[in-house]
Amino acid sequence: MSPALILTRAAPPADILAADANDPLRGFRARFQLPEGLIYLDGNSLGALPAATPARLARAIDHEWGHDLIGSWNSHDWFGAPRRVGDKIAGLIGAGAGEVIVADSVSVNLFKLLTAALERQAGRRTILSEPGNFPTDLYMAQGLARMLGDRALRTVPADDIIAAIDDDTAVVMLTHVHYKTGRKLDMAAITAAAHAKGALVLWDLSHSAGAIPVDLNGCGADLAVGCGYKYLNGGPGAPAFLFVARRLQDELVSPLAGWMGHARPFDFIDDYEPGAGITRFACGTPPMLSLIALEQGVDLILDADPGLIAAKAEALSEMFIRSVETRCAGLGLSLVSPRAFADRGSHVSFAHERAYEICRALIARGVVGDFRAPDVVRFGFTPLYTRFSDVWAAGDALADVLETRAWDSPAFRVRTAVT
Amino acid sequence: MSPALILTRAAPPADILAADANDPLRGFRARFQLPEGLIYLDGNSLGALPAATPARLARAIDHEWGHDLIGSWNSHDWFGAPRRVGDKIAGLIGAGAGEVIVADSVSVNLFKLLTAALERQAGRRTILSEPGNFPTDLYMAQGLARMLGDRALRTVPADDIIAAIDDDTAVVMLTHVHYKTGRKLDMAAITAAAHAKGALVLWDLSHSAGAIPVDLNGCGADLAVGCGYKYLNGGPGAPAFLFVARRLQDELVSPLAGWMGHARPFDFIDDYEPGAGITRFACGTPPMLSLIALEQGVDLILDADPGLIAAKAEALSEMFIRSVETRCAGLGLSLVSPRAFADRGSHVSFAHERAYEICRALIARGVVGDFRAPDVVRFGFTPLYTRFSDVWAAGDALADVLETRAWDSPAFRVRTAVT
Repeated sequence: MSPALILTRAAPPADILAADANDPLRGFRARFQLPEGLIYLDGNSLGALPAATPARLARAIDHEWGHDLIGSWNSHDWFGAPRRVGDKIAGLIGAGAGEVIVADSVSVNLFKLLTAALERQAGRRTILSEPGNFPTDLYMAQGLARMLGDRALRTVPADDIIAAIDDDTAVVMLTHVHYKTGRKLDMAAITAAAHAKGALVLWDLSHSAGAIPVDLNGCGADLAVGCGYKYLNGGPGAPAFLFVARRLQDELVSPLAGWMGHARPFDFIDDYEPGAGITRFACGTPPMLSLIALEQGVDLILDADPGLIAAKAEALSEMFIRSVETRCAGLGLSLVSPRAFADRGSHVSFAHERAYEICRALIARGVVGDFRAPDVVRFGFTPLYTRFSDVWAAGDALADVLETRAWDSPAFRVRTAVT
Repeated sequence: MSPALILTRAAPPADILAADANDPLRGFRARFQLPEGLIYLDGNSLGALPAATPARLARAIDHEWGHDLIGSWNSHDWFGAPRRVGDKIAGLIGAGAGEVIVADSVSVNLFKLLTAALERQAGRRTILSEPGNFPTDLYMAQGLARMLGDRALRTVPADDIIAAIDDDTAVVMLTHVHYKTGRKLDMAAITAAAHAKGALVLWDLSHSAGAIPVDLNGCGADLAVGCGYKYLNGGPGAPAFLFVARRLQDELVSPLAGWMGHARPFDFIDDYEPGAGITRFACGTPPMLSLIALEQGVDLILDADPGLIAAKAEALSEMFIRSVETRCAGLGLSLVSPRAFADRGSHVSFAHERAYEICRALIARGVVGDFRAPDVVRFGFTPLYTRFSDVWAAGDALADVLETRAWDSPAFRVRTAVT
């Protein structure tokens, strides 16, 4: 994405400029370090760099690691960081203090919570999910089922989930906002239906936390995991988080009985004893540099009014869909995401048989969305830094790519891995 | 550890100064950013900051994350980093290319390899280890045994391990250099004895990799894990690594079937298929900032001659033991580590009933070792940056603390968690 690739763009119309000028969140964009001229609609894959993060990390590197060295575990409270940042994230997802901890990756956290849930739900053999859920969610459940032998992952379409919950369902594992389609599931209704049948629910918040309202305790949720490097702007591969409702914490034991989850890790005794509360779901030593970056990203979001974030997520995505409906009609795109904002998150996807090449052609025009196999191009709207003029220009670029069949260029056909 | 705490020290004798002047590794100290006046003997807990790391991380933060954003997974080969850095670490531990990958924490990697080993060793029920092994190793095995129900962790003293291996032993799990005592086990002999009984061996290299010679393939080793933030100088909580001998890679499947270990992660298909070779032991998205810091630390060690590193580890630790034997005789210390370097790693431990307070009193004198419950004070010697004059001064400070009973001060009794 060198600056040379960024084309000169037409000025947006007055109403678009007015929307940016009147945006109550407009001041937040300056708190991110974004490349000049780039329209970045992939914050749902890797969030942008908060402007305060480089200096914070430089201090962590030079002063905490370099100068204070091992003492920083105490003097800079590295030890407390997983719970401290967890408590901050709790404020974004309707959880209470002591219900969230930062640890490991989404994948590893899924394994911990699924395993603990299966143990509690003795006699029930099924993990219920939907086909096409984010692959790592399905894979982790498959790995666990393979390991245990007598449990199985069962998938049914999202619309059939509630009907499929039965006495054999140990845990329902769903992603709140679907990574590909952006469809948002009804957390309250599915959780209530699961509880009525004695099942637990594990929610993956990777594509919702930080972008749209999540109310775990308001929905009576049991368990959740989520990603640190998408809307939380924690940097590439930032550690993930997990939530266990307080009422369940004493009943659940992590299979990954690492020393950081021990009741007294520095007693160095031979026998594992799970720590109190959410601490027992920690495992090994956390990657502090990545964790400190995550804290900066979370702090930034906490400065914004969550109602304004949600309203802007709706306005941005609605404007984009309308723009595509108007300007790209008849050009082969079909909306994959639900049309109504009430049914989706903050990203919007379209299918096209040449989706991969379209994605590449857009990147060449300085508009970064992403491709999701086999035929989806996906655009993420991050309320804190995406402008209405960005959305307008992205629609313009997309129309141009389709009208000119820019995607026919052989240059856009070479496949590379894209997250 | 403010500079105000550093006392003026006596100048070392001429032979000590000569040893530093003649040290063939003396140039490496300037490649670390160490606090002025501090004698840091805890690089076996958190390695010091390589001088090149801040600039490398600033580039990763500003340019790769901030500017190139999601494209960096390809353009800066973030995708390839776990295997690339793994291949570099392989060069330090006698492994081949494609046998090591950087992933997760030591704890999580232990779980992956123990589980995969147990599955392969069907019919054998025991994980054999030693009491007092690093707690997370024992805890992870306990968590796994608890989860599976029909397997168990059995511990016998290190000297009895070989005799204890029997037809029920699925895997022997040992730490090559003991975290507390510094005792080094005979990797070749134990591995051969295990193989003779049909057992596998999993070696934890956390306290050996980067400090003393390790020859996994020379010993016919099966499996290993190791730490990124000790002698590899990868920074606090740097990701860990794992080794699977090439001959075993196709037979073993990770229970943590994350998408980064899938054969084709970007096909986004519903069914897990383990990737080729060592890649299948990756799990979730790696913490890139911490991983990039680790690569700097590993690159630095690779610039040094491993024979010189080992020779200096011996010379430093031998000098320290002699110094304590001479200057602290009769003052209540007893050597916990093996006397002969052939039987230990690069750290040395002494027991004393007031070990905790002694450790605090030394820190107040600018000498940083660490305390390990219940009664051990531990000193790590990092050949690339520890000087002979540091070792001399540490011995001097220790003698002073003991002679003056400085540890009797109430200020040193307050306990804080120390890694």
